[in-house]
Amino acid sequence: MSGFFASRWVDRPGDVTELVGGLPKGFRAAGVACGIKPGGASDLALLVCDAPRCTSAARFTRSGTLAAPVLLNTRRCRLDALRTVVVNSGNANAATGAQGLEHAARMGEAAASACGVGADAVAVASTGVIGVPLPIDAVTEGIAAAATQLRDDGEQDFAQAICTTDAFPKRACLDVALEGGTVRLTAQAKGAGMIAPGFATLLAFVQTDALLSPDTCQLLLGVTVRRSFERISVDGQLSPSDTVILQSSGESGVEVTPETADELLFGESLDALLRQLALLVVRDGEGARRIGRVLVRGGDGDAVDRVARAVAGSSLVKTALYGGDPNWGRIVQAVGMAMPGSGSLAVDIAIEGIPVCAGGALVPHDAGVLAAAVAREEVQYEIDLPGEGVEAELFFSDLGHEYVTINADYTT
Amino acid sequence: MSGFFASRWVDRPGDVTELVGGLPKGFRAAGVACGIKPGGASDLALLVCDAPRCTSAARFTRSGTLAAPVLLNTRRCRLDALRTVVVNSGNANAATGAQGLEHAARMGEAAASACGVGADAVAVASTGVIGVPLPIDAVTEGIAAAATQLRDDGEQDFAQAICTTDAFPKRACLDVALEGGTVRLTAQAKGAGMIAPGFATLLAFVQTDALLSPDTCQLLLGVTVRRSFERISVDGQLSPSDTVILQSSGESGVEVTPETADELLFGESLDALLRQLALLVVRDGEGARRIGRVLVRGGDGDAVDRVARAVAGSSLVKTALYGGDPNWGRIVQAVGMAMPGSGSLAVDIAIEGIPVCAGGALVPHDAGVLAAAVAREEVQYEIDLPGEGVEAELFFSDLGHEYVTINADYTT
Repeated sequence: MSGFFASRWVDRPGDVTELVGGLPKGFRAAGVACGIKPGGASDLALLVCDAPRCTSAARFTRSGTLAAPVLLNTRRCRLDALRTVVVNSGNANAATGAQGLEHAARMGEAAASACGVGADAVAVASTGVIGVPLPIDAVTEGIAAAATQLRDDGEQDFAQAICTTDAFPKRACLDVALEGGTVRLTAQAKGAGMIAPGFATLLAFVQTDALLSPDTCQLLLGVTVRRSFERISVDGQLSPSDTVILQSSGESGVEVTPETADELLFGESLDALLRQLALLVVRDGEGARRIGRVLVRGGDGDAVDRVARAVAGSSLVKTALYGGDPNWGRIVQAVGMAMPGSGSLAVDIAIEGIPVCAGGALVPHDAGVLAAAVAREEVQYEIDLPGEGVEAELFFSDLGHEYVTINADYTT
Repeated sequence: MSGFFASRWVDRPGDVTELVGGLPKGFRAAGVACGIKPGGASDLALLVCDAPRCTSAARFTRSGTLAAPVLLNTRRCRLDALRTVVVNSGNANAATGAQGLEHAARMGEAAASACGVGADAVAVASTGVIGVPLPIDAVTEGIAAAATQLRDDGEQDFAQAICTTDAFPKRACLDVALEGGTVRLTAQAKGAGMIAPGFATLLAFVQTDALLSPDTCQLLLGVTVRRSFERISVDGQLSPSDTVILQSSGESGVEVTPETADELLFGESLDALLRQLALLVVRDGEGARRIGRVLVRGGDGDAVDRVARAVAGSSLVKTALYGGDPNWGRIVQAVGMAMPGSGSLAVDIAIEGIPVCAGGALVPHDAGVLAAAVAREEVQYEIDLPGEGVEAELFFSDLGHEYVTINADYTT
């Protein structure tokens, strides 16, 4: 089966079962239309953990022009004990000043009141157009309506309501067989544009009924976000709104204790889940036809990371990927840009396992075989720099006509 | 008249006369087809200064994967006494290893022999596909053919022969009335893609019959390149081949002496010439419909430069520019990306003089007036950061369907 773990770049964890849907014990969710998006598309999402001992961890964008919800969450919330998540799409409530902050607070209070939790237990997120005041009355009415529709299989509606330019909702529902018993792990994410390495440029919400301490939440989310949402790029653009939240209800009664086999197993499942979700975001990169993985080894210091970002961010590499053009010269060019002053760098490059460049110069190869290899949906670029350094990878989408069409006319 | 100095962003120098063509005294040039480009398009350019006391200065890309001609020039040439420039288009002779270096040397030797100058007085440049061996026999035959066609009005053929994806050749011919007498100043440039700030990602050749010392050549070229080719971006991609050369024959008999009014006047003319040439490269940015200028003030340290590069490099800003979409939210987003950890930065933004954002939040404005303003050919973005800092500008092209079409199918 292909199922959720469809990419060859994600190891499917051994002890998970993929399910069609259903939130972990203790969670309910809903998604409704409140009138922000034209045409009555759903645009208001609500999720609540009914277990009072809910634990959580959260990570946010590093942007210097934070959206109002991110400011609110980081200033006023207990990020280790979030019970409710409220999200609107169609409007980012960013670059909206003091009024935007007040709107975000009203949004949080409405969700707190509707769900019967404290205001500091509500995380607020908004995604969509930047610089337009939020229609706050429509949003609070939507929250009240959503609260009446909360269901333990409401995550599909939730995942749909957080989308903007996404071509498809991104979600997963897994059962993980730990030694202490089976726990459920679900996630919903949105993101297709304004996706950059350097942090999860998207919204992603993860729930489990495993019992995790706040420290374990924080540790596992930190490690797995670094290996997933921080290693993807659609357009190299960091958003003011990026938010990832992990919540644990503990309602399965199965505790995940630090430094046990179960923590490792749960961590591996969470890791695979977030990596595949991140790849879905890249796959849904606005207009993407193909996705690439660049793997860089050697060098010294952060050279591998600089080279990986230069390749993944190159509009020349990305248009070649789109065109199915095995243009390895543009890889050499991007490496050179990332390593100024190296003179004539002895770089080795292989595409889909076919060596094309050794010591900085071309390696004769079968052009037809290479052309066929880069016409597939996933293309891997391996780059070896002189030196003993470490390894870095990045996943990126191509750059095609659909990206231009979407972004030339869409006011974000 | 519009003429060469067409942009409102370049001050037309007071004492120049624009001419249709004709090289400065002492120079001859030619351009022929040697068979690198399919279809018999011209692809081999040769230029020689017949004055033995010719002085020069040169600047090259900072790429860490230098093309063979750049390696050759920097290792073996007297860059302050270049007499001959030989260029091929259609093949960059980059990522070609030891064989590429040997080919570049043979190209230089053929030009030296054909023009009767020393091999260390020849600068070699190649532009086109990366990673393909140069057809060196065709090139040396082309050099011999070009040498028979050198003319003092051959710069049009020269300018045509150095083009790759350029939609039009870029050249200028000016007479500059100095106090000591009139001198001629001509230039030919190519470049449409792989254009990034951080140095002149292009080939540009400048000639004058003013008498300049090598130090004056070096000084004036350094200053003016920093204000022109280093401040433009088409796709943020640094090329392994960028080369700018200034040659002075001295044949006018008019000396440009350091720290005189004539040096200032000549410098201003050279500055305006290179700025307008740089803008032509941006204007010809692969598929560009509009060009933008971002001007950033305030902040501290290099914040203005980081912000200017983030805005000019943003595919979201560039697609909005292409679409004629007054999407200032994407400017806020790009500023935030360049200033991580600033929380909620109090940035002011004006587009075409219309304030759209103050203190980080929207300013009500007439959307119709703004939409009309960004539909013109040149769009100016002004960004004020909190703080006392300096000022930085960058010129950039939009990102449209034509860029994708050109780069998805063109093997560079």
